[in-house]
Amino acid sequence: MYCFNNDYSEATHPRIMEALLKASQEQNTGYSMDTHSQHARELIKQEIKRDDVDIHLLVGGTQTNLLVISSALRPHQAAIAAETGHINVHETGAIESTGHKVLFQPSPDGKLTPSLIQKTLDFHTDEHMVQPKMVYISNSTEIGTQYTLAELEALSGYCHEKNLYLFLDGARLGAALTSEINDLTMADIARLTDVFYIGGTKNGALFGEALVITHPDLKPDFRYMMKQKGAMLAKGFLLGIQFEELFQNNLLYDMAAHSNKMAAILKKAFLECSIPLDSDSSTNQQFPILSNSLIAKLRENYQFQDIGPYDETHTIVRFVTSWATREEAIHQFVQDFKALLNTI
Amino acid sequence: MYCFNNDYSEATHPRIMEALLKASQEQNTGYSMDTHSQHARELIKQEIKRDDVDIHLLVGGTQTNLLVISSALRPHQAAIAAETGHINVHETGAIESTGHKVLFQPSPDGKLTPSLIQKTLDFHTDEHMVQPKMVYISNSTEIGTQYTLAELEALSGYCHEKNLYLFLDGARLGAALTSEINDLTMADIARLTDVFYIGGTKNGALFGEALVITHPDLKPDFRYMMKQKGAMLAKGFLLGIQFEELFQNNLLYDMAAHSNKMAAILKKAFLECSIPLDSDSSTNQQFPILSNSLIAKLRENYQFQDIGPYDETHTIVRFVTSWATREEAIHQFVQDFKALLNTI
Amino acid sequence: MYCFNNDYSEATHPRIMEALLKASQEQNTGYSMDTHSQHARELIKQEIKRDDVDIHLLVGGTQTNLLVISSALRPHQAAIAAETGHINVHETGAIESTGHKVLFQPSPDGKLTPSLIQKTLDFHTDEHMVQPKMVYISNSTEIGTQYTLAELEALSGYCHEKNLYLFLDGARLGAALTSEINDLTMADIARLTDVFYIGGTKNGALFGEALVITHPDLKPDFRYMMKQKGAMLAKGFLLGIQFEELFQNNLLYDMAAHSNKMAAILKKAFLECSIPLDSDSSTNQQFPILSNSLIAKLRENYQFQDIGPYDETHTIVRFVTSWATREEAIHQFVQDFKALLNTI
Amino acid sequence: MYCFNNDYSEATHPRIMEALLKASQEQNTGYSMDTHSQHARELIKQEIKRDDVDIHLLVGGTQTNLLVISSALRPHQAAIAAETGHINVHETGAIESTGHKVLFQPSPDGKLTPSLIQKTLDFHTDEHMVQPKMVYISNSTEIGTQYTLAELEALSGYCHEKNLYLFLDGARLGAALTSEINDLTMADIARLTDVFYIGGTKNGALFGEALVITHPDLKPDFRYMMKQKGAMLAKGFLLGIQFEELFQNNLLYDMAAHSNKMAAILKKAFLECSIPLDSDSSTNQQFPILSNSLIAKLRENYQFQDIGPYDETHTIVRFVTSWATREEAIHQFVQDFKALLNTI
Repeated sequence: MYCFNNDYSEATHPRIMEALLKASQEQNTGYSMDTHSQHARELIKQEIKRDDVDIHLLVGGTQTNLLVISSALRPHQAAIAAETGHINVHETGAIESTGHKVLFQPSPDGKLTPSLIQKTLDFHTDEHMVQPKMVYISNSTEIGTQYTLAELEALSGYCHEKNLYLFLDGARLGAALTSEINDLTMADIARLTDVFYIGGTKNGALFGEALVITHPDLKPDFRYMMKQKGAMLAKGFLLGIQFEELFQNNLLYDMAAHSNKMAAILKKAFLECSIPLDSDSSTNQQFPILSNSLIAKLRENYQFQDIGPYDETHTIVRFVTSWATREEAIHQFVQDFKALLNTI
Repeated sequence: MYCFNNDYSEATHPRIMEALLKASQEQNTGYSMDTHSQHARELIKQEIKRDDVDIHLLVGGTQTNLLVISSALRPHQAAIAAETGHINVHETGAIESTGHKVLFQPSPDGKLTPSLIQKTLDFHTDEHMVQPKMVYISNSTEIGTQYTLAELEALSGYCHEKNLYLFLDGARLGAALTSEINDLTMADIARLTDVFYIGGTKNGALFGEALVITHPDLKPDFRYMMKQKGAMLAKGFLLGIQFEELFQNNLLYDMAAHSNKMAAILKKAFLECSIPLDSDSSTNQQFPILSNSLIAKLRENYQFQDIGPYDETHTIVRFVTSWATREEAIHQFVQDFKALLNTI
Repeated sequence: MYCFNNDYSEATHPRIMEALLKASQEQNTGYSMDTHSQHARELIKQEIKRDDVDIHLLVGGTQTNLLVISSALRPHQAAIAAETGHINVHETGAIESTGHKVLFQPSPDGKLTPSLIQKTLDFHTDEHMVQPKMVYISNSTEIGTQYTLAELEALSGYCHEKNLYLFLDGARLGAALTSEINDLTMADIARLTDVFYIGGTKNGALFGEALVITHPDLKPDFRYMMKQKGAMLAKGFLLGIQFEELFQNNLLYDMAAHSNKMAAILKKAFLECSIPLDSDSSTNQQFPILSNSLIAKLRENYQFQDIGPYDETHTIVRFVTSWATREEAIHQFVQDFKALLNTI
Repeated sequence: MYCFNNDYSEATHPRIMEALLKASQEQNTGYSMDTHSQHARELIKQEIKRDDVDIHLLVGGTQTNLLVISSALRPHQAAIAAETGHINVHETGAIESTGHKVLFQPSPDGKLTPSLIQKTLDFHTDEHMVQPKMVYISNSTEIGTQYTLAELEALSGYCHEKNLYLFLDGARLGAALTSEINDLTMADIARLTDVFYIGGTKNGALFGEALVITHPDLKPDFRYMMKQKGAMLAKGFLLGIQFEELFQNNLLYDMAAHSNKMAAILKKAFLECSIPLDSDSSTNQQFPILSNSLIAKLRENYQFQDIGPYDETHTIVRFVTSWATREEAIHQFVQDFKALLNTI
């Protein structure tokens, strides 16, 4: 049984494990005030070519999303997301739990645009409705797509003009930045957003997201917020050690590129077999539309996730690859897939 | 420089690190639905001699506290703690952030009793005040003291009679259960409380708290709450692997016993030197009252925490030992301490 | 200038004013524990033919909605509404402010059905999403439509089967129950919902909504919730006095019937003039689609609300009548409307 | 039976009732956008001799407190109150319900001072604790005492220096400003605080509190907050009409002065009878310490509130007078009281 359920099924890259082992003999200051965390922050600043940012190392994505949004907004303000946005559907109301409505717009490609956001602004005109104040986007998106430099520049300019904060969820930022169609750098992301994070959990770390705050209004007292929401890791140096490794010798990008490469093999195979894809992804998530009978047979040897019914006899499913996906496993899958396809 | 600041300065016990390394080749189901987590839950059930409990593996203490309390209480209900209770002072209003008042009673030994709780009940009589509904205690307490079997039985009976949930924060439960004055077992804790947790972070794990819910009212939908508060670790199997180790071959108790033993050497030395202690602790936290001049000199080689001023020339400080505290470091400290004491 | 903006532009019915005047010499117990409030509750129980209910008198609708929902739901649970539902759009995120997501389904007639709700249930399947637990409907709806007995029975049966609470917002319940197409009684409403309220603010009272809780799970400690949310009126007897009047000598129904009758004249005139209506309302709100040039001219003498653009040259507007709308004003409007129509 | 339970047992002053009656024929704009509310705001600005303020008319005190505090604070920030502060005990956790801890200091006279506040600041030093940001005081206080100009100036200077908002709850501001020992004006209050309110509910209105925001940071979007918390009255003109009356021909002050005068008669009688008073109040609340046997006999003809046990045979009780308290009722009470005293 091989698992394509997600990109967090395997523990962590050997280099990260080694770094943790090496630190076992140390005593470190708690709550991310240690030298590893400090060094990790320096490495990230180098990567984004900016020094005037606050960087916080957090454990997970939902935690980071709820912290950023609840810290940035006043009680009557809301975040805008694509309908497929993680905060809109898959966080059990984490944002609402902090008191804020999530407004959304349907978006077939999972991305927001100025004109989609403008629809939300046009509707929310007075104090009888919430006040949209933050735009939440994901890169890569929840359906594997990604923003171009031009798209992000347009969004950034628009948000600035409308006095909206732009927040980029980078749980899979590595995958976006190493895809074959990418034209963005991490420095671009830092330049064009007010706050974003660099995912570790879904890119080969044991856990961890590095939050980068560029907008001065969003910086004050963020550590208070972390503590209050139970998001300040006692042994914060574990995050520091991991991000030190991720930002040394290109490890973050290498792992992400590998996962994309594995997914590209899958995508090519699906297309060769005339399997329709529910979104046009160049990253490590692929969404083929398969017949239910084929799915049943594939499940004898492979795990992958149901997204939802496509029609009465077909289902949209999701295959996710990771830094640890073995190329031979992919080839085996493709071979099995094609063989099964011929039998039905 | 040796650090007695806390019990979470060192990464983790070698056996836990080995177990993590061993799992590096595996694919595991996410969100604590994996076999390691399942096995860890089984081991804990054996230890507490009960099968009718729900067990959830969480990352940290503040997170666990806010989850338990916000999941258990209706909006108008409150938790009662000792004034020194962690939820009352050192969690940046985490409980209030979920909408609930923390009521407290001053308690010189850091423990709650039926008569202290009754004071709070007597005051809160109608709908113009919050409704006390949960009692929060810590064992060992924030000032190193601990509950006896008789005390916990009295509390448990009282809470049951008054229809109050009894919640025990066991961030340092290992230290309590292995102290030389302890007469409680983990099975007693499970029998006498409605919900409690077994601390990993402060007892040699990288991180992790194992929450045990015994009261049927507190069980439903707890995983929803975890997800909503950003407390569901994607690679939950990391928690499972650690708690498997902690509950095999006595590791949890051995580490706690070691930390207590190290602290006992400190305590003995303080008493030999006629240093007053701010609380009578038999666990891994010691609170000597030292002159400010002595503190200044000690700080040249040792780190420890200020608790607060005792008088104009003395301060209450805290020394914490851990599973990793080296016995020779303790002896060195005692030697240095006595030498410094003679010079002032 | 005559105002059709809403049904809360005029103070209150003379009989209510008289009752308030009469009580001016009294001393009454605070917080709705007075005899007027008690009598009002008795009158309501007679009207709904049930004694096993809890009744609370509240000041306004948004307040009542947020109280009911936040009191009924656990933190991870959500309410389901029609897209046009008041809680979804026009309460500035009041429900989210208490921590709960509002899920919605588009519904052209502003009403929910079992099949619409089922769509929401089908999507929300596990702990990574909120848990739908309460269904929120309005009668009459925000767009003037209303539920039939058969529709409400279907909804009620469905909600019971799915273990969902059914909550009916009756801010305009009077208008619904006195419309010419109505086949429901207030006793039906009490029998078929778990909690509902009878609007006073939009039906001739100075202010006030009478909340009726029929489901035993929703009753405990509701007064605590009221106090906590700032919804317990010190001089609660003012609510009691008003609801005493409303439920004596048919006042509530008479006022509602009058407002419907006034609206029916408008509706008839619009239809005679071949003006399309955006919803088929038999209650006191009418939604004609008018040309922008006609709107501009009408505004010289009449106030009414813009709902939104229909196309480039037409806008959906809202006319609302009330207990106090003068029949001669309606006829004058119709005359002016027809005259203006001929000029453009 | 005569009731001294509180100052909100009687409906409202005849002049207010007349003004409401007079407005019965009008159509008014909703949500406090009407001309009465606008006029009331103008009158208040004249009274406080300032034009650069925002004024909002709200229904009740708990509502106003929770709105001001939740609008002003970021999630990790806290309010500081005296232990007897209304927000600390008698609002069912309303402030905590919005996510904020209430910190308090014991204060025998119910007032805060810079040195009491400093104690709270000294304790809250880092991100592991909440951040004190707003000081909440009441004038008159919950125990009838009041601030002098010198005291308020000291507090104001201190708060400004420490970057704390100063919020004055004026539910009984009229009583404070008309007491015989008062040396403050409403203009002083506006000058020395960042936000305060002028109570109507406890000073002869049907209901209503006029909130005055002087600090520019606290002004933006306050109406959004009002709507979200269910605090925007549909027929807001009812508030406008009442505050118009209160601020014309000295009505607010006259009613408050009357209630103080009635209380002074009680106070004098208690002192003549050597009855100890639990606080030294010159306003409309008096807190005699009476024997339980006397209390039992008094209760045959009078209602008043128990505050709490003084010793085994005595109880602290509260007598409150109002704008409507009849002088003959007071004299009758004094006569009865003295007679009863002689019998026991």
